[in-house]
Amino acid sequence: MIVNVVNVNVKKEHINDFITATIHNHKNSLREPGNLRFDVLQSQDEPTRFILYEAYRTQQDANAHKNTQHYAVWKDTVAPWMEEPRKGTAYAVIAPLEDSLWK
Amino acid sequence: MIVNVVNVNVKKEHINDFITATIHNHKNSLREPGNLRFDVLQSQDEPTRFILYEAYRTQQDANAHKNTQHYAVWKDTVAPWMEEPRKGTAYAVIAPLEDSLWK
Repeated sequence: MIVNVVNVNVKKEHINDFITATIHNHKNSLREPGNLRFDVLQSQDEPTRFILYEAYRTQQDANAHKNTQHYAVWKDTVAPWMEEPRKGTAYAVIAPLEDSLWK
Repeated sequence: MIVNVVNVNVKKEHINDFITATIHNHKNSLREPGNLRFDVLQSQDEPTRFILYEAYRTQQDANAHKNTQHYAVWKDTVAPWMEEPRKGTAYAVIAPLEDSLWK
């Protein structure tokens, strides 16, 4: 399993636009066969800051996400709303390792 | 729902110690009635960096975690292994909102 943790900071006037576009991406991403989770979180203290928490069965599944149409549309849609470039970091899963706890 | 995302950077000679202690914390935390998830992740590029991804039903449940014995033991055990102070950030959940997708 692999988890991509994407940190996003959006312009404050586009918070709601970003949420709408990202919920759309979330719904489509959950339908990818290799996707295990696609959580969208908003910082309590700094509401312009978000985390996308994307879990995939394999690296190939993570790569496949970036080739989907919904990812391409999301990326282009939100690009002008970024306060700074978003930053994705790839993580290996230490726990849980039980498949049932992921999907 | 609330998610606490804790970023940890450990001394490289204590990576394995940290993993062992944190898996123990993970297992006990999943038994807390208000805990929804307790994922432990390790950065692929920088293996001294970890994320604890802790989801709770309510803020009260998140607070309750910090009053458990397993949290107290973990905190004291891992303290000397930190390369820098760990940083926790609290997030609200934007998606998914379906309870079934959290536990």
